Amino acid sequence: METEHRVALARLEGPLRCENHGPIDLHLDIHQDNAAGSLRSRVETALREAIRGGRLAPGTRLPSTRSLCTQLGVSRGVVSEAYAQLAAEGYLETRRGAGTTVAGTSAPRPSAGGHPERLSRLRYDLSPFRPALSAFPRAAWLAALARVSRQAPDEHLGYPPPAGTPALREAMAGYLSRARGVQATPERILICSSLRQGICLLWSVLAEKGARAVAVESPGWRGIAETARDSGLASVGVPVDRHGLRVRELEALRVDAVAVAPAHQFPTGSVLSADRRSALVQWCRRTGAIALEDDYDAEYRYDRRPLGALQGLAPEVVVYGGSASKSLAPAMRLAWMALPESLAPAMAALQRLRGGMPAPLLQLAFADLIERGDLDRHLRRGRRLYRARRDALLEELDRQLPDLRVMGAAAGLFLTLMLPPAVEESSVLASARGNGLALQPLGGSEPGIVVGYANLDQASVPQAVKLLARSIGSARPDASARPDAGQNVTP
Amino acid sequence: METEHRVALARLEGPLRCENHGPIDLHLDIHQDNAAGSLRSRVETALREAIRGGRLAPGTRLPSTRSLCTQLGVSRGVVSEAYAQLAAEGYLETRRGAGTTVAGTSAPRPSAGGHPERLSRLRYDLSPFRPALSAFPRAAWLAALARVSRQAPDEHLGYPPPAGTPALREAMAGYLSRARGVQATPERILICSSLRQGICLLWSVLAEKGARAVAVESPGWRGIAETARDSGLASVGVPVDRHGLRVRELEALRVDAVAVAPAHQFPTGSVLSADRRSALVQWCRRTGAIALEDDYDAEYRYDRRPLGALQGLAPEVVVYGGSASKSLAPAMRLAWMALPESLAPAMAALQRLRGGMPAPLLQLAFADLIERGDLDRHLRRGRRLYRARRDALLEELDRQLPDLRVMGAAAGLFLTLMLPPAVEESSVLASARGNGLALQPLGGSEPGIVVGYANLDQASVPQAVKLLARSIGSARPDASARPDAGQNVTP
Repeated sequence: METEHRVALARLEGPLRCENHGPIDLHLDIHQDNAAGSLRSRVETALREAIRGGRLAPGTRLPSTRSLCTQLGVSRGVVSEAYAQLAAEGYLETRRGAGTTVAGTSAPRPSAGGHPERLSRLRYDLSPFRPALSAFPRAAWLAALARVSRQAPDEHLGYPPPAGTPALREAMAGYLSRARGVQATPERILICSSLRQGICLLWSVLAEKGARAVAVESPGWRGIAETARDSGLASVGVPVDRHGLRVRELEALRVDAVAVAPAHQFPTGSVLSADRRSALVQWCRRTGAIALEDDYDAEYRYDRRPLGALQGLAPEVVVYGGSASKSLAPAMRLAWMALPESLAPAMAALQRLRGGMPAPLLQLAFADLIERGDLDRHLRRGRRLYRARRDALLEELDRQLPDLRVMGAAAGLFLTLMLPPAVEESSVLASARGNGLALQPLGGSEPGIVVGYANLDQASVPQAVKLLARSIGSARPDASARPDAGQNVTP
Repeated sequence: METEHRVALARLEGPLRCENHGPIDLHLDIHQDNAAGSLRSRVETALREAIRGGRLAPGTRLPSTRSLCTQLGVSRGVVSEAYAQLAAEGYLETRRGAGTTVAGTSAPRPSAGGHPERLSRLRYDLSPFRPALSAFPRAAWLAALARVSRQAPDEHLGYPPPAGTPALREAMAGYLSRARGVQATPERILICSSLRQGICLLWSVLAEKGARAVAVESPGWRGIAETARDSGLASVGVPVDRHGLRVRELEALRVDAVAVAPAHQFPTGSVLSADRRSALVQWCRRTGAIALEDDYDAEYRYDRRPLGALQGLAPEVVVYGGSASKSLAPAMRLAWMALPESLAPAMAALQRLRGGMPAPLLQLAFADLIERGDLDRHLRRGRRLYRARRDALLEELDRQLPDLRVMGAAAGLFLTLMLPPAVEESSVLASARGNGLALQPLGGSEPGIVVGYANLDQASVPQAVKLLARSIGSARPDASARPDAGQNVTP
């Protein structure tokens, strides 16, 4: 359809400007055969593209929601929501009494819209950060919410205890001990809104105690360095290889803490070896440093025995952090830390001061989900689902991209694909974006990309890998010489 | 040390029970070589372990703080704080006159303590911070949660947009415009987890832009100064009188922002006068300062016409902040800000970085509650309920404490009771605690107390005021001369 659409648009002479001509026709095509996503997201996408392409110029007044819904044959709510989303993203401006106009800047910030927005343009979601959203156990979650909303005593409707509701702290202490070998009593558990939120507290508490710098994995999750900087701490990169963080390199550094993802490092997928675990703990004990263990997708492992949490080796120097973002959904906004006794009171006090506690009813519902075994059931289903998706992806990679090395596929929600040495990560990402794939770069010493498969159903795997192979192919230094390269990359 | 400690303990024959033997020796070892953490946390830990291990049995009476601090060689504050923390966690019970004992259950709830627990010891909850928790519309809230949990597209289960879900931002912009005269388009609305959480972001963003100091109301809500300090800003108190903040005194200060609660100031209950509102806005415009408007309980007013938000006068220099804590319940953990255009992008970016966004399903459910008119219905019921409770309280105060002046009763969830000049606030608070009343001090230039009535049902008013009168009576300087004073204070 793309071509037809372009032709149709070309017939329009110049950008539309129809402020004074009553309801304008936006010529949006939302009923293409290959259109994906909800009606709302299709309306959004069509409008967004029209604005970005310059067809709808800054200042253009859009038709009323009533008028546009008639034009498009969709419900009015669909249009209102699309307008609201685009207004939130900065593409549109809504003024009371003045209707909705295209925002004043010709290069709108692709802003706060965040992930839902970005998803809607994608053909395949290869993000390593999201579990299968369609597998979220809505019924069980709603049942838990309903139980606690009906049964919780009134006092749970007041201000929540800073460190979390006792019921969830107790459930988490039990769960983490059983599932991850974490050593923690309930009073060492801190419930937070997200791992980032908890990490911000940790860096601030350490900074308050005199810490100056933190060692971070390189490559690694950017959230660690971002939050450290926000708390006034410097961050120093330490290389990661196939055995995880090179612990020995910590010796030369003057840092007060180290952040590490031992179970399944992002983005390399490596697992911290037993020797290095032990060396890391020794280093912490010797220097008085604190290790932050980011156990973010450790619930998922396929071909290897479970490895307990690092924290279990040395609960007095390791802060364990995990969240429900991968085990259930990012939208849960629930995370937890198991803290050394020396940090627990200061962390709770700062959580109270900053008002970051998650809603008590959410906490109680999550505790209910754990206690009833619903979380375990969900995780078992998830492991089967992701293993099947991963296997399909590995098989297809083997078929279509046999020369490329795969790393870190034994666990988690992503694998790492090493690129041919001469290929630049940024070129692959750009081509992939053009092909409707969102990828994360590896960002290490050799080029590579991170391919998440949680939201990639098996039927889509061949086509997604085809687009991936195309993106890599067209990013090869010699690609421009090939006659079909351009076509593939920018449809 | 562990071994020595164990040996020392083994010498004790059975659990300690020394209620009647004067100060007991707890054999706490807080000076071990490898002991970590502050003195307070070491004292806490030692006590907690002794209780959990069964060495200190339920019912055991602990030494007074004075006695234990001597035993341990630490300051008395350290011991008091440790006792308070363990009481909050449920390990200890503190009764006026009866000292501190190990809590009655042999397996104490290792709880987060927090408010619910503390409340349970109270006879009347006179907190100004909580709406009537029993009036929370559980059915409507659960219905909204159920609707959105079933209907929200999968993309709402991913990471939330940093500034809030578009649906709630739109609903809030409409609601705030209609209910509070706030001028804001959805893209200026930031949804946060609590007003504190949003204020932390604001101070940090202003500090990043070079701000150094913020003017705060004196007396005022301590959260403002606490969060400012946390963000590295100094805070400077500006007096409040019956017309609200003395805006003129800002002229002499070098501050970059001012925090003000124009609708119903805590704790004085005063309303910022029209002249001062206008002067405040002028001052902001002239100096480039930002005003934070804390509109925390503005939904409730009884005898006076509604006053629009300050923000409506000058949306480009005023940050409007409100929350669902008073209109629904603190446990909602939802708050919002209407931001000047110049601050909105930086606030959303910092919210993302710190991971403080509330759960999207909560946001969607709250939007649903607003759109269906459920929130308005709930607020209408609330106004009737609180007016009746306030009227009953005023009547009873007039009967039992006719000489004391009442302030700030025209709106909100509390009134301020001015005390006789010679009475100390702290004495009244201490007596009141003994009588089972939790009160807040006024903390201004004249003595006064803050009496919240949201959770005080009419039938309880006479008895609550009787206890209040008793508490004030026994705090009068001449009270000890009266034969019955002591009896009244410690029941």
